[in-house]
Amino acid sequence: MEFKNVTVVKKANIYFDGKVVSYTVKFEDGTTKTLGCMQVGDYTFNTGAAEVMEFLSGELSVELPNQKEPLIIHSQATFEVPANSSFTLHVKSIADYCCSYAK
Amino acid sequence: MEFKNVTVVKKANIYFDGKVVSYTVKFEDGTTKTLGCMQVGDYTFNTGAAEVMEFLSGELSVELPNQKEPLIIHSQATFEVPANSSFTLHVKSIADYCCSYAK
Repeated sequence: MEFKNVTVVKKANIYFDGKVVSYTVKFEDGTTKTLGCMQVGDYTFNTGAAEVMEFLSGELSVELPNQKEPLIIHSQATFEVPANSSFTLHVKSIADYCCSYAK
Repeated sequence: MEFKNVTVVKKANIYFDGKVVSYTVKFEDGTTKTLGCMQVGDYTFNTGAAEVMEFLSGELSVELPNQKEPLIIHSQATFEVPANSSFTLHVKSIADYCCSYAK
């Protein structure tokens, strides 16, 4: 799977002392995605716009707003995160993802 | 700094148990770069084609073929690696880079 005719920011986005890194990809329609990887660890992110998170590999669980039970992910899964909320990921093995932001 | 009109592979390239991750960026002229991050650690890479490695952040030293002394990098540096050789990086803090491959 490839994204064609896009713009990529050369510099990595580095979070949590480098345990989470991502790259920003800009699309012709004005939307943005980030492609990133998370090392083993626990991470809480706050959202501005709503996000769709797609994991491509990794073992993790995710605490989402309005969900009583954590989402358990083995390798591949996609979930939505509401705008102006937060979610927490417990990453058990290196996980890579594609995050799509609402325009 | 951005790369425009490029194709990006969605899936990360994952090496050394995830301690080194990169994304492949393909250009219209047929050349390829990878954008990646290295966690703290020691890594040896073998080259096929010649490479130009540009570090954008991080503290590291690099053992290059035909260099008696290691190259010490504070944050930003660019160096070439010959084809069909190997080089070893000793990464002391999270480092992100852009690697350009000869066509």
